[in-house]
Parts: sequence; C-alpha cells; structure tokens
Amino acid sequence: MIDPHIRHIVARLLGTGTATSRVSRAVDYALITLIFLNVVAVILDSEPAIMAAYGAELWAFEVFSVAVFTIEYFLRVWSAPDLDEPAFSHPVSGRLRFMVSPSALVDLIAVLPFYLGMFFSLDLRALRVIRLVRVFKLTRYSTNMNLILTVFRAELHTFVALFGLMVVLLVLTSSGIYLLEHDVQPEAFGTIPRAMWWAMVTLTTVGYGDVIPVTTVGRIFGGVITLIGVGMVALPAGILASSFSEQLRLHRKQFENRLADALHDGHIDQEEFEQLEELRQTLGLSTEETQLLYDAFRRHQRTTHCPHCNALLR
Amino acid sequence: MIDPHIRHIVARLLGTGTATSRVSRAVDYALITLIFLNVVAVILDSEPAIMAAYGAELWAFEVFSVAVFTIEYFLRVWSAPDLDEPAFSHPVSGRLRFMVSPSALVDLIAVLPFYLGMFFSLDLRALRVIRLVRVFKLTRYSTNMNLILTVFRAELHTFVALFGLMVVLLVLTSSGIYLLEHDVQPEAFGTIPRAMWWAMVTLTTVGYGDVIPVTTVGRIFGGVITLIGVGMVALPAGILASSFSEQLRLHRKQFENRLADALHDGHIDQEEFEQLEELRQTLGLSTEETQLLYDAFRRHQRTTHCPHCNALLR
Amino acid sequence: MIDPHIRHIVARLLGTGTATSRVSRAVDYALITLIFLNVVAVILDSEPAIMAAYGAELWAFEVFSVAVFTIEYFLRVWSAPDLDEPAFSHPVSGRLRFMVSPSALVDLIAVLPFYLGMFFSLDLRALRVIRLVRVFKLTRYSTNMNLILTVFRAELHTFVALFGLMVVLLVLTSSGIYLLEHDVQPEAFGTIPRAMWWAMVTLTTVGYGDVIPVTTVGRIFGGVITLIGVGMVALPAGILASSFSEQLRLHRKQFENRLADALHDGHIDQEEFEQLEELRQTLGLSTEETQLLYDAFRRHQRTTHCPHCNALLR
Amino acid sequence: MIDPHIRHIVARLLGTGTATSRVSRAVDYALITLIFLNVVAVILDSEPAIMAAYGAELWAFEVFSVAVFTIEYFLRVWSAPDLDEPAFSHPVSGRLRFMVSPSALVDLIAVLPFYLGMFFSLDLRALRVIRLVRVFKLTRYSTNMNLILTVFRAELHTFVALFGLMVVLLVLTSSGIYLLEHDVQPEAFGTIPRAMWWAMVTLTTVGYGDVIPVTTVGRIFGGVITLIGVGMVALPAGILASSFSEQLRLHRKQFENRLADALHDGHIDQEEFEQLEELRQTLGLSTEETQLLYDAFRRHQRTTHCPHCNALLR
Repeated sequence: MIDPHIRHIVARLLGTGTATSRVSRAVDYALITLIFLNVVAVILDSEPAIMAAYGAELWAFEVFSVAVFTIEYFLRVWSAPDLDEPAFSHPVSGRLRFMVSPSALVDLIAVLPFYLGMFFSLDLRALRVIRLVRVFKLTRYSTNMNLILTVFRAELHTFVALFGLMVVLLVLTSSGIYLLEHDVQPEAFGTIPRAMWWAMVTLTTVGYGDVIPVTTVGRIFGGVITLIGVGMVALPAGILASSFSEQLRLHRKQFENRLADALHDGHIDQEEFEQLEELRQTLGLSTEETQLLYDAFRRHQRTTHCPHCNALLR
Repeated sequence: MIDPHIRHIVARLLGTGTATSRVSRAVDYALITLIFLNVVAVILDSEPAIMAAYGAELWAFEVFSVAVFTIEYFLRVWSAPDLDEPAFSHPVSGRLRFMVSPSALVDLIAVLPFYLGMFFSLDLRALRVIRLVRVFKLTRYSTNMNLILTVFRAELHTFVALFGLMVVLLVLTSSGIYLLEHDVQPEAFGTIPRAMWWAMVTLTTVGYGDVIPVTTVGRIFGGVITLIGVGMVALPAGILASSFSEQLRLHRKQFENRLADALHDGHIDQEEFEQLEELRQTLGLSTEETQLLYDAFRRHQRTTHCPHCNALLR
Repeated sequence: MIDPHIRHIVARLLGTGTATSRVSRAVDYALITLIFLNVVAVILDSEPAIMAAYGAELWAFEVFSVAVFTIEYFLRVWSAPDLDEPAFSHPVSGRLRFMVSPSALVDLIAVLPFYLGMFFSLDLRALRVIRLVRVFKLTRYSTNMNLILTVFRAELHTFVALFGLMVVLLVLTSSGIYLLEHDVQPEAFGTIPRAMWWAMVTLTTVGYGDVIPVTTVGRIFGGVITLIGVGMVALPAGILASSFSEQLRLHRKQFENRLADALHDGHIDQEEFEQLEELRQTLGLSTEETQLLYDAFRRHQRTTHCPHCNALLR
Repeated sequence: MIDPHIRHIVARLLGTGTATSRVSRAVDYALITLIFLNVVAVILDSEPAIMAAYGAELWAFEVFSVAVFTIEYFLRVWSAPDLDEPAFSHPVSGRLRFMVSPSALVDLIAVLPFYLGMFFSLDLRALRVIRLVRVFKLTRYSTNMNLILTVFRAELHTFVALFGLMVVLLVLTSSGIYLLEHDVQPEAFGTIPRAMWWAMVTLTTVGYGDVIPVTTVGRIFGGVITLIGVGMVALPAGILASSFSEQLRLHRKQFENRLADALHDGHIDQEEFEQLEELRQTLGLSTEETQLLYDAFRRHQRTTHCPHCNALLR
C-alpha cells in the first residue's frame, strides 16, 4: 500500500494552477516540451528522406513518448481522488468519473493507437498522423487562450446561425452557377456538388482561380458572389469584435462592483487589496485600468457628503 | 361544416413560438426536416449518376413533398383567422390578406412550379433548382438569426451608401485598368465591362489570377487597387462590429430601464422577476450580465440614504 | 438686367438640403439621373460593337449632357451670391471665390475636356474616360455617406501611420523575397521593384498566384508574409470598427447633453421637442435609442428630490 | 576640451519632441529625408539597368549617407549625458548604457555593414539589402504610430495565444490534407511540410491556386478549411477592434478623471486649462470629444445644488 501522502504530492505535481510549486512547474514544462517534440516527430515522419536516415531514432522517441504519456495517464487516474474536485474523491467511482472526463480521454486517446497498432494491422500513415491528438493535451496548460474560448462559447448561438446562413448561401450560390455554367463547363459546374467547390472558394474570398465562370451572365453572377463573400468575412469579424468588447466590459463591471463593496467603509484594507489584485489578474485587467476605476471611485466619494449633518455618506 | 375548435387547434399546431405545445413542436421539426431533405434532393438531382440510379425514388419524394407542402399551405390559409393577428381575423378578407403576406407567398411559390410544370413544358433543370426557394420556408422557424437581421436592417442606410461607394470604385477601377491595359490585353481589358471582372475580383481581395495587369504602370495601379480592396473588406467589418456592439448596448439599456422601474419601490416581487426574466431571454442577455446590472443598482440604491439621519437623498 | 428675385429662385432650385421645395427636389433627381446615364455612356463607349451601332446616339447624348452641365455651371456661378454662404455674397469676388470651391471645380472639370477636345487633338479614349469625373458631382447630393467620410477624416492620422507601416512592410517583404528567389526566378523576383508585385498581392491576401516562391526558404518566408497579410487586413478593420463605435457614442452624447438642457425645467415643450427631433435626424440616431435616453433621464429625475424641502431638484 | 554648452545644444538639436526648436526640427526632417532616399537607393540598386547607368552616383550617395549617419551616431553618443534620461548622465557608464539602448543599436547596425564590407568579402547583394535596417531609424520620429503599437503591446498575450492556435491549426490542416491527397499529388502533398504551403495559403485566404486538392474528400476538407480561414482572419480583426476601442476608452477616462480634479473647486483656471489641453493632445482626443465631457460635467454639477435652499448636495 502506497502512502496516501505520496498520492497527494503526485496530484499536486501533475496539477496546474497559480498556487503550484516550482517542481510542479518543471513537470509541466517537461511535458509541454515532450508534446511539442511529438508534433515535430509526426511532421518529420512524413518525410521519406528523414525516415530513411533517422527512422530508428524516431521510433525510439515514439516508444519513449508513449511510455512517459502512459505513466502520466496512470498516475493521473491513481491520484484523481486527491484533486480538489469532490466528484473524483471516491476511490473507485471517482476514478471512473475522472477517466471519462474530456482531458483524461484525450490522455488515453494520445497513447491508445500505439497499443492497438501492436495487435491489429492498421494503416501506418494514418496511425502516425493520429498521434497529433497529443497536441490537445496542451489545452490543460493554456490559460491565455481562455478569452478567445470564452468569446466563442458566449457567441455560439450567433455562430450557429451564421453557419446556417453560410450553408444556405452555399447551396443557392452553387445552384445558381450550376444553372448558368453547366453547359459550358461540365467538368467544373456540371452538377451542384461540383459547383460547390467554386462557390466555397469564392464566398470565403480565397479565390484559387482553378475554376472560374466564363459566360457573361456567369461572370456578373460571380461578381455579385465575390461581394457577398466580403460580407461573409465581415460578419464573423464584426460579431467577434463586439463580443471581445463585451467580455472586457463584463470583466470591468465585475471588478467595479467588487471595488465598490470594498470601498463601502471608506477605505481598502490589506485583505481587500489582495482579493482585488487576485480578481484583477483572473479577469485579465491592466493595472492602468483598475487605477482609473479606483480614481473615479475616490473622486465620487469625495463629493458625497450629506448636506445637513456633513457626515460622509456610504 | 368543420368544428371551429379544430381550426383553432390546427392554427396552434402550425404556429411557432414559445408558448406552443409539444405536438406543435413535433410538427415544426417534421416540416424543417422535410425542407432540409428537399434541399438535399435538389443537389442530388443535379448528379446524372444518381438520377440514373434513383431517379424514380427522387421523383416519388418530390411528389410526396409537394403533397405535404400543399396540404400545409391550405391548412395555413384555412386556419389564418385563428392566428393572433387581427388583420387576418375576417373569414374572407382576412384569409386574402394572409395569402399576400410574405411567408404565405413563399409557401405558395414553393409548390407552384410543380403544378405549372404539369401543364406547361418548362426547362426541367431550372425548374428543379427553383425548388430551392423552399429553403426560405425555414425563416419562419429561425429565431437565432434575429440579431444578424436586426443589425442589417439598422445599418441598411450605411450599407446602401457603402454599396454606392463600391459601385463608383468599381467603375473608376475598371476604367483605369482599361486605359492602361486595353492595348496589351484586349481579351481581358479591351472594354470597360470586360475590365470590371478583374476590378471586382481584385477589390474584393478574391484574386483568381486568371487576368492580371502585365504592364509596369498597370501593375502599380493594380497594387494600389489591392490596397483599396483591403479597405473595402475592412469597411463592412467595421460597420458591422460597431452595429453589433450598438444592438447589445441598446438591449442592455432596455433591461436597465425596466430593472430601474421594478426596483423603484425598493424590491423586486415575483411578478416583476418573471417579467424581467422574460425580457432577458427576449433580448438575449446572459444571466451573468443581468446579475451585474442588478448588483450595480442595489449598490447605487444603498448610497442614496444618509446613514446618519436616514433621509432619502435622491 | 435680370430680376434679382429670379436669381434667388435659381439658387434655391439648384441648392440641396432639407428645407428645399418639391421642384428643387425634382431638379436634383433629374441631374442625378443624368450623371448616372453619363457613367453608363462612358462604359458603353468602350464597347466597339455598341460604338459601331449607336455611336451617333451616344455622341448626341454627350453633346446634350455637356450642354446641360454647362448651363448648370453658369447658373450656379451666376446665383452664387444668393447662397447662404457669406463668403460668396459679393457679386464679383464672391463669384470668383465660389468658382475655386471644390464642388464648382468638379463642375468645371466635368465639361472642360469636351471643349478642349474641340480645339486640341487629344487621345480620344482617355478623353472619354475622363468624363467619369462627372461621378464626383454626386457628392453634392449624398448625405448617407457622411458617417463613412467623417470616420475616415477622424482617423486620418491613424490611416497615414498605417499606410507608412504598410510601405515599410512592402519594402522589407519585397527585399526579402528578392534575396531568396532572385537567382531561381529572375523574371519575377530579379529586382526589388519586380518583387513588389508579389509582395503587394500577398500582403493584401489577394493572392493571384501568377508568381509564387518556389524555393523552400522562399516558401517559409512566403508563409510568414501571408500571416502578416492577415494582420494588415485586420488592422484597418479594427481601427474602423473602433472609430464607427466612437462616432456613434459622440452623437449619442451630444443628444444626451441637449436632452439634459431641454429637461432642465422638468419638461420638454413643443419647440424643444422639434429641436431635439431635428438633432436626432442630423445625428442619425434611431427613435428607439432616443426613447431609451429619455426614459433613463425621466427615471433619474423622478428620484431627485431635495430631502429637506421636498422640492424638485434641477 | 569642447564647451559643455555646445554638447547641450547638440543633444537638443538631435532630440525629438514637442518643445524642440525650429533648427532641431529642420535637422529631423533632413535626416528623415536621407533615410527615405536610402530606401529608394536600395531599391534602385537591385535594378541592373540602373546600376549600369548610375552605379557610381549610387555608390557616392551611399558613402555620403554612411558618413552622415556615422557622424550622427558619434554626436548622439557624445551628447548622451545631456539627454533628460538620468541613466545616461554619467560621462562614461552613461554613454555605454546609451550605446546598448535599442535606438542606438539600430543607428550602429545602420552603418556597420559598410565598414565590415571594407575588411571582409561578403555577399554584395545581401549587404546592400541589409542597409534597409536604416528604415528603423525612423521609429525615433514617429508619434502617429504610437496608438497602433500600444494596442499591439496591450494585446500581446492574446496575439501569442492566437499565434499558438494558428500553429496548431496549421499542423492539423497540413496533416489532414497530407493523409487525403499524398497518393494522388505526391509533389504537392507528399509530406506534411510540403502540405503546409497549401495549408498556410488557404488558412490566410490568400489562395494562390498553384496547388489545390483534387479528390472529392480532399475538396470537402479544403472547403471546411477555407471556412476556418475566414475565422482566422476575423479573429485578429475582432481582437484589434476591441482593443482600439479599449485604448480610446482608457484615454477618455484618464482625461475625465483629470477634468474632475480640475473642476473640484467649481471652475478651471488658466494653468489647469493648459494642463488639460496638453493631456488632450498627448492622449489624441478630439476637441469635440473633450467639449462633450466638459458639458456633461458642468451639467452634472449644476444639479448638485438644491435650487431652493441652495445647499451643496454632493
């Protein structure tokens, strides 16, 4: 039986967060480096010249990586009850719950193809590329990407509607060009699915130029579609811009409310200051920003005295 | 004579909205699925190989779809007086008014070509593609797209001005390249209308590359036009971004005003809470957002009493 | 001697604005239509087939247009002292000052090439296309484009800086690709000016694909440049989005300040209402927006009573 | 020993800023012009025809430029102790500290290759192009670009996250297309690094069209990637738009706080006015904007006195 104290240390070493120790941070960086090297290895694997020269080394590196990731996986499952999450606290059912959590599943899928490849004969090339799922192990360590992901989640409904609009546009555009050009260019526009290639390439303003309308009416139609394509690029940009501003405003407002609570008794004590500083970092606000909010509040307070008893209001 | 109660049930089953029953919702989803399958069928119809193999099945599906949509159309017209809209309440003139409403016209145009094709010999291919108007029947069910449409409507004047600007730019660009390149490339730039194809493809940054200026002056001019093209993509993005932010601000302000009314007597009762919640959903605000607005209000109220003589200050 | 009253009527007929009569509006629309037909005529002139068939008619239309625009020009100069502008009020120096105003110069340049062509032998094709300057006569009538132009003027300094940034980027990009590819593709990248074509087409994400790097290092460099190109498209979009929001905010604030002045005595009388409505239209605010501002003000007023004498504050 | 007064004058002549004299401004413009002419010279140098005709003149100009820039560099180092910066005030260590400052290093690198080329045999073409680093000497004079640079610095973390996202996307996209197309098009998609060219060109919506997927599955995958590419263009645009708005808001808030301090005693005296005006220019706010802020403050103050008992309320 292993000491439960060791299990707790393992849980903390593998965990990520602000309060973790320097050793835990070193473990993080080692694993991140290994993931990046794996991505590079997958890319190199696809080069026949490199495979011929360094095939054995790349294979050794793969075996080493799988070993590390497998040990990491078992340690994570084993130490799951020591995580802060109460859902994982039970020795058996907690560990099972942990195993079906998204990040644990990614860890499993990162090594599983290697072991499956030992028992079944699979397409080697596909198998190698599938190792790229290991890149998703990085999501555990990323905190900077949070704002981008929050915005995507907040605007999910709008983006679904936008995607629906684009699909309708794609169908109408490819049907239109099919009607106008299918006789002249049967190879490129002979059926609606084939015409979709041109429609997609034009609506996204990529414009490869491998197929283009040649009839006069087809070109006028194409010109209109390029214009609509500009709108299709502008719409998500506009939605995202508005949403980023919105998130920043929400964060500012949250800080402002907490600042008002802290200033309710007229001053900010040490504990309140530390809480505000932690909130500031969590919300990603600049000190310049919070200083301005504080100044505005102090000024507001300075001008709020009761006119009859002269006492400080609030 | 059919029971008017049945007509009322039919009206509610076909209607869309938040207060509708589970059966009504099932009818909605069945019709939406049928519309999507129709779009797929139109796409498949354009593939000769599929037509040869499953032509009969696709034709049967078309007959079935037209039958369903025709019945749907007649049921909608018949039950129109039972809709909430007072303009449709008269048995005769109300139904006629309903029949010329945009959504009823779309329903009619969705099936009409099929019946016309039985009596007149029309271009089969065009006839098939025209069935795609059925996709517009979907607008009845879409609520997520409202924000996008509201923004477009609010900025209509700006977009018309922008469109005018683009047309002027298109004429000037194609005239310029015509002057510089018509001698060297008569096929591509021999006349202004022909030069418009290049101008359009460049101003929208699509850039097919099928025709490009070859003279030195033409390329310098072309380079300037690509730069202006970037502006043409940036302008609508900027306008849309500003407009989405504006709509969100308006919604927030509307909620804020209603919240202030509800909080005028110092607290929010059950009825007021439900009204605010409904407004919140209609305006598409997050609970996080409304909680922040509520906190700010409570805090503001707390400071409007003098803590010493307890008199209401504002 | 012509009656000065007639001169005043002519000035008002040719003028544009909200307070003009229905006849003045008809004159406006007739001139706008004529300008548009002139643009169409220039485009048609460049088609040899159309010139062969309808050359005489197009020439007659040109003579007619020049006649109308010439008369318009002389009437404008003649009636200039009756414009509201005090700088133009003097019969001689005022008219001269009017003649060098931008809009009068555009009117002159719109007809001058025609008369010059009668005395000097000029390049016919260029002469025809130069008639397109007539399109700038439209700026006199456009009010919708004001917001776009205001934004461009307000951000002029930022756009100049952005342009400088792009020029520096263009020079560095074309020099870089010149160093990497001039040996392999002397035709496309043999000198820096030649390499600028590829640099420009890539930095603006147009991507014709007529010239592309072929060496490995050249392609890696090219890939980095495409990424920078995305930034070059995103920057003006971001600046414009921020600027449009800013203009809307300024307009709202202006209205808010005027509303506060009008509400100072506790209510809005008929005259104040009309002034606010005119301001609302000038600033391009929606009634929905102004209603919200009004509601917020009323609510604010309702809660501002002096706590000791109970009189309405403000 | 040179008069320390002269050293002080040299420091002021070479310095940039608002308080500098007219002679100092003339020196600035002369150096800026010389830098621009150097950029033009580098571009002309790459044209063999021009080199053949004017090679001697271009060489003379290069020698002259290097002479001027060398003298400028030594004068800057010599007069460094007279700059406002206290870190540079010591005659020896201060000058050494100045020499490793970024702008002094750029000045050094601008002339160093010339002198190195005299002693070592280097690749002439690369040597010539490296002279383009002189363009970075311009950053000393640019004030307009500040807003753009501030925004980039403020959003650095977000852009790093965005860059990480793009690299992950690039690897996944190129691996995907490699799996789907490497058999059919070994030349373009035979290895993952080769497939990266297509992936990059498509994700940035440049779309050269030199390599494109040809299989049906490859084209469907390609269509999805073009759509993701639109998102990749929209994301930085959205982030930048939000960030520009944020910077403007911060500047406005800073001005507002200072205005509130100045108005605390009820009026703005001459000194306060000048300070506010200087702040306005530094922050790049329009007078229209600051006037509105002032109006709002005056109006707000007006309502803080009870009009009946005249007591100060806030």
